[in-house]
Amino acid sequence: MQEIVDFVLELDKLKGVTRKVKPLGLDRYENPAEHSWQIALLATSLLRYAEPGVDLDRVIAMLLVHDVGEIDTGDVMAFVEQGIEERKAAESAAAERIFGLLPGPQGERMLALWREFEAAATPEARFAHAVDRAMPVLLNLANQGQSWRENGISHERVVRRVGPPIRAGCPALWEYLERRLDEARGLGYFGA
Amino acid sequence: MQEIVDFVLELDKLKGVTRKVKPLGLDRYENPAEHSWQIALLATSLLRYAEPGVDLDRVIAMLLVHDVGEIDTGDVMAFVEQGIEERKAAESAAAERIFGLLPGPQGERMLALWREFEAAATPEARFAHAVDRAMPVLLNLANQGQSWRENGISHERVVRRVGPPIRAGCPALWEYLERRLDEARGLGYFGA
Repeated sequence: MQEIVDFVLELDKLKGVTRKVKPLGLDRYENPAEHSWQIALLATSLLRYAEPGVDLDRVIAMLLVHDVGEIDTGDVMAFVEQGIEERKAAESAAAERIFGLLPGPQGERMLALWREFEAAATPEARFAHAVDRAMPVLLNLANQGQSWRENGISHERVVRRVGPPIRAGCPALWEYLERRLDEARGLGYFGA
Repeated sequence: MQEIVDFVLELDKLKGVTRKVKPLGLDRYENPAEHSWQIALLATSLLRYAEPGVDLDRVIAMLLVHDVGEIDTGDVMAFVEQGIEERKAAESAAAERIFGLLPGPQGERMLALWREFEAAATPEARFAHAVDRAMPVLLNLANQGQSWRENGISHERVVRRVGPPIRAGCPALWEYLERRLDEARGLGYFGA
């Protein structure tokens, strides 16, 4: 029992990691813990648009653990492409350390889910990626492009970076977002 | 698709609701969104101590939606016993309003999960309640009783309020916590 308690208190640190987007109406950056909660419910909501047969429970389990490595590495914006290999290696080591705190099959299962998400090779992982990539776009569309403007991110860069994974995991969602992103360009929501 | 987007942006408001306990090492109160994420992973970690046959995926789905009504009502500490009937009615109306934003079976399913949690009549709901009640206790035990001291909550009141639901849903967890709460009394972690 003490190992489980130590593990869940280690997870608490994810509440102190900051992402680049702000919750609507709040003057602070969101953290990966509340983000993970929100995308688990977005995945549930979007189920009818997922590939038929997708196992929603496994998608949710994956989304709940996918950012845990950031406890050690911090969050890096999806648009930063330098040093991506080193970052992936550091996140992988972090996931092994943190899930290793939890003995027995549950720790192993969480690490396996974390790796399945990273590999993005199953329909569940692809759907999870689509939802994870879409959420900050939806917040930015509702937030006058707050994190795009703050970080000098262009329309072209957003489309190039999030388009392929969202289209691969949830085509109907990309169809919707592509149109919204076009409108956002006319509204000056981008930073470059 | 627009209805799903409106729903998930409505959910965003839960990030701005404040609970009474602070994340470890942070000088702010936690919100129900990050709390819901954390207890979903605590439930996963505690699975071996749940009643045999408990459906973990339904427990997780329940925990992810159980606080959504607080978007309209705010968080009220578990120890406040006045006005509990009115509060329950307001939270129920809130859950109907918010899950009603999501058309079709997913919205209905979320509302059903919310109600199953509230009724606390299935093994899954009892396990979910145990985990939900235990998490702020674990944070307080690691935080020198921060929210107990700030709110004048005694050892006896904690045991009386959280003991029965935790024992009902996860007896081994209560056995562990009862001992830790006794130690905490000696350490002056309580507020009355």
